[in-house]
Amino acid sequence: MRPSGRAANALRQVSIETGVNRHAEGSVLIRMGETHVLCTASVEDKAPPFLRNSGLGWVTAEYGMLPRATNTRNRREAKNGQTGRTQEIQRLIGRALRAGTDRVIMGERQIVVDCDVIQADGGTRTASITGGWVALRLAAETLVARGVIAMNPITTHIAAVSAGVHGGQVVLDLDYAEDSEAGTDANFVLTGEGAMVEVQASAEGATFSEQEFHDMLALAKQGVAELVAAQKAALG
Amino acid sequence: MRPSGRAANALRQVSIETGVNRHAEGSVLIRMGETHVLCTASVEDKAPPFLRNSGLGWVTAEYGMLPRATNTRNRREAKNGQTGRTQEIQRLIGRALRAGTDRVIMGERQIVVDCDVIQADGGTRTASITGGWVALRLAAETLVARGVIAMNPITTHIAAVSAGVHGGQVVLDLDYAEDSEAGTDANFVLTGEGAMVEVQASAEGATFSEQEFHDMLALAKQGVAELVAAQKAALG
Amino acid sequence: MRPSGRAANALRQVSIETGVNRHAEGSVLIRMGETHVLCTASVEDKAPPFLRNSGLGWVTAEYGMLPRATNTRNRREAKNGQTGRTQEIQRLIGRALRAGTDRVIMGERQIVVDCDVIQADGGTRTASITGGWVALRLAAETLVARGVIAMNPITTHIAAVSAGVHGGQVVLDLDYAEDSEAGTDANFVLTGEGAMVEVQASAEGATFSEQEFHDMLALAKQGVAELVAAQKAALG
Amino acid sequence: MRPSGRAANALRQVSIETGVNRHAEGSVLIRMGETHVLCTASVEDKAPPFLRNSGLGWVTAEYGMLPRATNTRNRREAKNGQTGRTQEIQRLIGRALRAGTDRVIMGERQIVVDCDVIQADGGTRTASITGGWVALRLAAETLVARGVIAMNPITTHIAAVSAGVHGGQVVLDLDYAEDSEAGTDANFVLTGEGAMVEVQASAEGATFSEQEFHDMLALAKQGVAELVAAQKAALG
Amino acid sequence: MRPSGRAANALRQVSIETGVNRHAEGSVLIRMGETHVLCTASVEDKAPPFLRNSGLGWVTAEYGMLPRATNTRNRREAKNGQTGRTQEIQRLIGRALRAGTDRVIMGERQIVVDCDVIQADGGTRTASITGGWVALRLAAETLVARGVIAMNPITTHIAAVSAGVHGGQVVLDLDYAEDSEAGTDANFVLTGEGAMVEVQASAEGATFSEQEFHDMLALAKQGVAELVAAQKAALG
Amino acid sequence: MRPSGRAANALRQVSIETGVNRHAEGSVLIRMGETHVLCTASVEDKAPPFLRNSGLGWVTAEYGMLPRATNTRNRREAKNGQTGRTQEIQRLIGRALRAGTDRVIMGERQIVVDCDVIQADGGTRTASITGGWVALRLAAETLVARGVIAMNPITTHIAAVSAGVHGGQVVLDLDYAEDSEAGTDANFVLTGEGAMVEVQASAEGATFSEQEFHDMLALAKQGVAELVAAQKAALG
Repeated sequence: MRPSGRAANALRQVSIETGVNRHAEGSVLIRMGETHVLCTASVEDKAPPFLRNSGLGWVTAEYGMLPRATNTRNRREAKNGQTGRTQEIQRLIGRALRAGTDRVIMGERQIVVDCDVIQADGGTRTASITGGWVALRLAAETLVARGVIAMNPITTHIAAVSAGVHGGQVVLDLDYAEDSEAGTDANFVLTGEGAMVEVQASAEGATFSEQEFHDMLALAKQGVAELVAAQKAALG
Repeated sequence: MRPSGRAANALRQVSIETGVNRHAEGSVLIRMGETHVLCTASVEDKAPPFLRNSGLGWVTAEYGMLPRATNTRNRREAKNGQTGRTQEIQRLIGRALRAGTDRVIMGERQIVVDCDVIQADGGTRTASITGGWVALRLAAETLVARGVIAMNPITTHIAAVSAGVHGGQVVLDLDYAEDSEAGTDANFVLTGEGAMVEVQASAEGATFSEQEFHDMLALAKQGVAELVAAQKAALG
Repeated sequence: MRPSGRAANALRQVSIETGVNRHAEGSVLIRMGETHVLCTASVEDKAPPFLRNSGLGWVTAEYGMLPRATNTRNRREAKNGQTGRTQEIQRLIGRALRAGTDRVIMGERQIVVDCDVIQADGGTRTASITGGWVALRLAAETLVARGVIAMNPITTHIAAVSAGVHGGQVVLDLDYAEDSEAGTDANFVLTGEGAMVEVQASAEGATFSEQEFHDMLALAKQGVAELVAAQKAALG
Repeated sequence: MRPSGRAANALRQVSIETGVNRHAEGSVLIRMGETHVLCTASVEDKAPPFLRNSGLGWVTAEYGMLPRATNTRNRREAKNGQTGRTQEIQRLIGRALRAGTDRVIMGERQIVVDCDVIQADGGTRTASITGGWVALRLAAETLVARGVIAMNPITTHIAAVSAGVHGGQVVLDLDYAEDSEAGTDANFVLTGEGAMVEVQASAEGATFSEQEFHDMLALAKQGVAELVAAQKAALG
Repeated sequence: MRPSGRAANALRQVSIETGVNRHAEGSVLIRMGETHVLCTASVEDKAPPFLRNSGLGWVTAEYGMLPRATNTRNRREAKNGQTGRTQEIQRLIGRALRAGTDRVIMGERQIVVDCDVIQADGGTRTASITGGWVALRLAAETLVARGVIAMNPITTHIAAVSAGVHGGQVVLDLDYAEDSEAGTDANFVLTGEGAMVEVQASAEGATFSEQEFHDMLALAKQGVAELVAAQKAALG
Repeated sequence: MRPSGRAANALRQVSIETGVNRHAEGSVLIRMGETHVLCTASVEDKAPPFLRNSGLGWVTAEYGMLPRATNTRNRREAKNGQTGRTQEIQRLIGRALRAGTDRVIMGERQIVVDCDVIQADGGTRTASITGGWVALRLAAETLVARGVIAMNPITTHIAAVSAGVHGGQVVLDLDYAEDSEAGTDANFVLTGEGAMVEVQASAEGATFSEQEFHDMLALAKQGVAELVAAQKAALG
């Protein structure tokens, strides 16, 4: 039995609300249960320096967590600089979102996807990818609607979910209570067609078997399919 | 005529929603028109080092703004450190909230009020004070309810509003469109009884007369009275 | 009775010595009693980036305090970075000095006014403004004398003084002994004609009444008039 | 055909030299072809603060790269701080090494494994894990030999290798020439018994299929087995 | 002929004024021609951590330069951190002053000597040592007068001067005009008895001969003797 | 008797191995007894900004020490920034190497010499200069061989050695055991012809006499002559 009473293969309740910020070219508030992430996509007319004269665009992400998003207040990163964990997460989000973008169609400009965790209960990085992709897609549609680019450069859905081994059982979409006890924690980023974009599976203390890995992957494929459906519903 | 069509002495629409964060001892989402600030109050069992063995408590504030809270995306402070403007604002919020707190009753502990601007349209520091005070009050009630302290250390309402000289007219509660054009901008922090806690009036380019200052103060007193009523309504 | 024996409306002894630095385009050592601030104004041929091609000049200020300017040695800011207090003060000085400058006449260049506190006894920010204005005026005269600009861009005197409520009495120009005990501390920046540039009144712990505010303002107007006279005498 | 002429399942030439530093409790120079990493394990008598009074030990890693380890000189991190990439790598190495350590047997002390890349040609993080484990094991033996702990807390071999998809072919142990062209890059950390510790598979641009993932894993299992044999040989 | 018209072995005009700061335990304004350095010595009751329970005292120095001490304004170190040059100079001053101090007599406390350059014209580090020693000596006398320590721990005069090779001629006490053209620049720190404390001779571009070194040393010995006389006169 | 059993005028065993890095234009591993420093020289096509359009080249150095190069592990500078000691050493190495370089022949480019201490046993800065010069010379030869510059800009050998007063005896090339006990420590940088480039002699606690200085210099001249011979042998 999971702490939340969910079945092993059950996602938390998913909600993706769009248009939550009046300034951003694309914006989303994604809720995976009690994990709430505000995602905004901001278009910048210039690509980063390493792409100058390449004709290619860039998608990057920044991740943050409000100090009291968690049960115990964390130090504000603006005062102490980004932790290694934060940098690792935002690099992951950026790579994931770029995998679903045609950077030639995009042209030499940048979209920055900010993922700010308003409230945390596990799975903030996967929620950021799933919600951030919708914000990115909306910003791309804005660019097309404004006539800045001719075609939409977003080539496929990108969504992410965690799986893990908790109490000997392979489970989907861990909340904080499970995550803090799980021997193995894995994050899967997949496309709308089920192709693999990123896998990060990690044991702290214990190890995991090949079988467990396969079971986690199977759950993740099912979970991502449901998240892609939620993305589609949010986009109308 | 003001850009927003409001009367010179009209506040924007005020909304103060409580209980918006499941972790914090007190939490509020305050909306002053299109300015939205999330305020959480977090109790820490220790007072800061300079109060060790003094028997006194401390209230402090931290202020942040999400990168795309504004029309043009700002650099994330976690990457670059807090600006002087940010530090100045959070020092102001902290001083204002302490003016309404009995630090002897509070005892040697600290309450940190985080004010994070989700969306900005002028007046973020005054909204932070008005909303932050409600979060602080809720956290103090939590401490009393838990039996940690015997009495509520919050002695009076604290609320804040801006006034300014825009197009030759003295107006209340400037939004961004007015603020960016105003010759004089002033912030007033008052108590529930109308006593003065903090005044900051500043001319950039032009100067202002003593009469204009008095007119701004008169508007501010009326505006704060309305905000105190909204605080009372939010607290039920 | 004030600790210093001064009357409630008496400034400390003021001395403004010019030409104290052989390198700077304008330089002043201002003494307000035991508070001594060295002010230098340095001309730079370029305006800051945000004014490129605007035709406008800029005046900015930097503030520092030698580690042993105070009774107890402070940590050197070069080792730890500028505190929020320092940044707040230098932003105030810069705003104040710009209010007395015609930035069109000045043209696209910058004058940096450095205010370094050699010895502190309260009122360092107001002394920095009063002394810094003389250094700025001297640098502007140097620019005119060198034929770089046709007219002097300094349009009015700018001077500043503190007032406060100490022991129930409203007093002018607080020294450190008074400042550390005062319930309310206010800084007023006015022009030579008595127009208002900046007001910052702040209560820590107690609050202040509208009447007290008016009494502080009245003292400040008189004090600034005396300081403007001292500026004129220093300029010869 | 691979750029190096190696077979798809061939590791580069492996060399693990021990005792290369006269000060460290354990030290190793590992060479995977032209990738050379110096690994030292340093024992500290205290565990980190978060383990105080837990009875548990800690293993952590730090990673660095000399500025000219690469074809083009990199900026020295001592001047600019650790990049996100560096922090991500050293977190990975630490997690991997802890997975093979019994932290109860170890007791409240810390072993810091420094992995400094002397020369880089791809695969520096996996070489750091494979070599760092030998340094860690030697430091643990030193602790046993000195009578500080009764038993060796290292419970299993830990080794790592990369695999990837290069030119449509799944290959083992990518060098820099392959890594910079590969559509998918994966790192596998396994135990001496073939259990899984960490998997990080990442597509930049393209995606990868489940079949490709399985093929990479199969190569990695074989590669790690060979590396474990090399670790055993190095330990004598 | 030297730019200043001085003889090869002539110091600039020396002035050492004591008691220039009302807060510091010892204070001096030293002028070597147009180089002016304010030196304060501050007593701290605790020695630095590495001396805990050693019974030994410590003397350390910090060095700074006001932004417009030089002909062209320098960036303020409080905004950018101390440069390598600044750190090198303050380490030198500290070592020099410790060489004349009996740290057993001093007991477990620290004296911090701040040397802040008000105006620079070459030779700021040597002026800091010569002036800083007087401030240190005064602070030590204060400690004796207060009964904190039984004897004066300052065992000998410490003074410093530069010499160099300018235009083929060996000269004493270089000002900025000479220093910026000199092929070799040397700083000598000697005791009141002429014993050697520190020698730093440095060629940039050219080299220097053993004979030139001896001639520089001979000038320095004479110059330091005159500076020691000035120190004695200042102390009365 | 010296701790190492060496005669007072005996260098430690010197080994200079070239070609130790496949990427750098020049590379050396220098061993002075148990002090091992890896030196690489990297050519950059641009000179630093302050030389733009001057036609002159630049040689600079960076110095680092691996955390466990020493008996007790040091904090990694990448995490904490370069210490004052590190900056002082790398400034010294750069000045020393420039003294043997014709910057006109070199043309507007830069050579960066990285000196990274793999293992430390005293004398790391002098070993860095002696080894770094060989790496610099090899990089210059590479530039000539590639036809980038017409002549070799390296005009003379530069080598360095320490001397000191240990146990009342003047000795050459101190190892860590001697260095930590020596009352006086001096570093001498000389050319292949015995001309002086840099002298840094420093007493901590005690002072030294002119005679001791001369004796140290005499030993250093002999030691540098032997090191120059080793440089020549290494270059073949």
